Amino acid sequence: MSIDAKGIYQAIEEMRAKAPVVHNITNYVAMNNSANALLAIGASPVMAHAEEEMEEMVGIASALVINIGTLSEAWISSMFEAAHQARIRGIPIVLDPVGAGATSYRTQTAKELISSEPPTIIRGNASEIMALVDEKTKTKGVDSAASSHDALAIARKISADNNCVVCISGETDYVVQKDKVIKIYNGHPLMTRVTGLGCTASALCGAFAAVENDAHVAVAGAMAVMGIAGEMAAQKAAGPGSLQMHFLDILYHLSQDDISQRLKIEE
Amino acid sequence: MSIDAKGIYQAIEEMRAKAPVVHNITNYVAMNNSANALLAIGASPVMAHAEEEMEEMVGIASALVINIGTLSEAWISSMFEAAHQARIRGIPIVLDPVGAGATSYRTQTAKELISSEPPTIIRGNASEIMALVDEKTKTKGVDSAASSHDALAIARKISADNNCVVCISGETDYVVQKDKVIKIYNGHPLMTRVTGLGCTASALCGAFAAVENDAHVAVAGAMAVMGIAGEMAAQKAAGPGSLQMHFLDILYHLSQDDISQRLKIEE
Amino acid sequence: MSIDAKGIYQAIEEMRAKAPVVHNITNYVAMNNSANALLAIGASPVMAHAEEEMEEMVGIASALVINIGTLSEAWISSMFEAAHQARIRGIPIVLDPVGAGATSYRTQTAKELISSEPPTIIRGNASEIMALVDEKTKTKGVDSAASSHDALAIARKISADNNCVVCISGETDYVVQKDKVIKIYNGHPLMTRVTGLGCTASALCGAFAAVENDAHVAVAGAMAVMGIAGEMAAQKAAGPGSLQMHFLDILYHLSQDDISQRLKIEE
Repeated sequence: MSIDAKGIYQAIEEMRAKAPVVHNITNYVAMNNSANALLAIGASPVMAHAEEEMEEMVGIASALVINIGTLSEAWISSMFEAAHQARIRGIPIVLDPVGAGATSYRTQTAKELISSEPPTIIRGNASEIMALVDEKTKTKGVDSAASSHDALAIARKISADNNCVVCISGETDYVVQKDKVIKIYNGHPLMTRVTGLGCTASALCGAFAAVENDAHVAVAGAMAVMGIAGEMAAQKAAGPGSLQMHFLDILYHLSQDDISQRLKIEE
Repeated sequence: MSIDAKGIYQAIEEMRAKAPVVHNITNYVAMNNSANALLAIGASPVMAHAEEEMEEMVGIASALVINIGTLSEAWISSMFEAAHQARIRGIPIVLDPVGAGATSYRTQTAKELISSEPPTIIRGNASEIMALVDEKTKTKGVDSAASSHDALAIARKISADNNCVVCISGETDYVVQKDKVIKIYNGHPLMTRVTGLGCTASALCGAFAAVENDAHVAVAGAMAVMGIAGEMAAQKAAGPGSLQMHFLDILYHLSQDDISQRLKIEE
Repeated sequence: MSIDAKGIYQAIEEMRAKAPVVHNITNYVAMNNSANALLAIGASPVMAHAEEEMEEMVGIASALVINIGTLSEAWISSMFEAAHQARIRGIPIVLDPVGAGATSYRTQTAKELISSEPPTIIRGNASEIMALVDEKTKTKGVDSAASSHDALAIARKISADNNCVVCISGETDYVVQKDKVIKIYNGHPLMTRVTGLGCTASALCGAFAAVENDAHVAVAGAMAVMGIAGEMAAQKAAGPGSLQMHFLDILYHLSQDDISQRLKIEE
């Protein structure tokens, strides 16, 4: 896929045709919306977290999304096991380090996941990404206390050290692969008032990575689609409640024209 | 209740008058929507999963709905305990074997629940129902990989062996009680793009079974209402996001006329 | 803040300016809607339940909301630990005893939380509040089987014994601090057909208490805003599905005029 409207739309058409299974171990808050976003774009979401079924469930999946938004010991074991199985099978792994920097439990879990079962893609806000390297970074709960640009050097380092793509989402999304940075300017401020849209972005990264081998390109496509659908939804929305609803409707109908008219990307 | 618009509507009126407590042990993804659908139709939903409170919670319920969509060991214990208590009290039990066939953990749990605490009603998609008997059936995550018609012979066998009603939901819903099959042709393809509507169907089976002793009739009513409300919602919806919202609004206002104008049922 | 439109609106403006972190240990059903309501009004919600991170997460929070809607042993430990940390830090604690009176597990957990880590605010429906004192009170699942007025004497006693504010929500909301009672007449019957709006009310109590030291005043403000936004949403809604959506939109845009035109309060 090329990182333009045509390439992004082709990836969506492939999702709609193949309905790749995306296995999510995600937080309680975002499960419903993530599953709905994956269904709307054409993927086949699975939510499963029991260690007993990780091997088999990863075995039928085309991508794995791990989101640490509501952690507990049992779920952490399953995250490691699922990531391990995904590595063996060679399917892409997306890690969303929700709230890294807010508590050491989250920061440590994210770091250990990265070091023992390196993800293909890491997507978080600026504070979360910075907390993966800089122990002094504090995250304000699950909201970022830093700007995306601040986190850029750290994202480059994480990408180089772990051979993965790092996405810092924010007003501008930075999709980093070592020295290469793709910037996406789509999106709308009202999206920050809807819970779990960051988690939804990570889920879409999984769906795009399921149909596109180049993870840098896949993440750029996913983030562009998030931003564009978010903009279009915000235009129709009377507030954050209706934004969430329109977002799913728009994702379901998203056309190549919608993408080409709105895409603001810089490589 | 008779399986026509009048009979189905009378059951809804009874729900609205009595607000029967429907106890759900269901998955994280579908909890909110299931509770909202039960409230919209007039029932009083409870979500509770701690083994410590199963006996008392089942004790105030008029139906129990067990959904294995996001399993873990602790929840399985509670499912068995709740089903056991429901059997003792003689209230209907609905089992939704979400993802049976996708992992052996799910298939085994569903089979063990059926053999040790036989449910009154089993509702699933074709793959899930087939996986309860045929070990070779594979489920694509939580989405069906088989047609409803393929599963019909197996549903008949499960119904006869366990003296229960089996519902295979899909484009056509088959409600099977031994040799008797009720077919329901209502519904809309967009419903498959909204997560948890199958789980909602199981919850409504519980609500109908709470007010109607004949489980075959109760499930037919529930599935007809799902399909009719889904059709009406799809007509108003701009996509899967708004379908979910309209579905709840329509369920709340559903009239006998709505049902009689749309009901497509074959006994 | 004064308990009039101006005072209530000032509290909202302070939330929008400061975005206080509100830490929720709440039930699976209401997590998404509670987080969205907190975001809509201007707060920064965190959902976290692992005992390992309670101290740090409470450490960055301006209020703690504990909701026992879907209990389990591990979560109860975290509730006690979080409440303990909140006490040490002196931040307000809101307790929502969902389903107290329905099972002894819930009743006991709520009572033990109150006696060992006294909350600043307790908010529940009439049956739930009564069950905290009167062992004979039965709750119909999570819905009230008593009228708010019946619970008033008990609320006064709980408030006096535990030096806390007790809110009985219902058609009229009673906000009780010892002998002082504020009555709020806002709200709409359709709100009872949307799951988790009671939980959302408790979350908003936390957000108001984060910016207003007088808990009696804070809870009155939160309940007035719930009722007013609910009324405005019901006016636009075609049923419970759209009520939830409009509720969030309205909360986001709520103005001083909206409040002053609708506020029905009696001290």
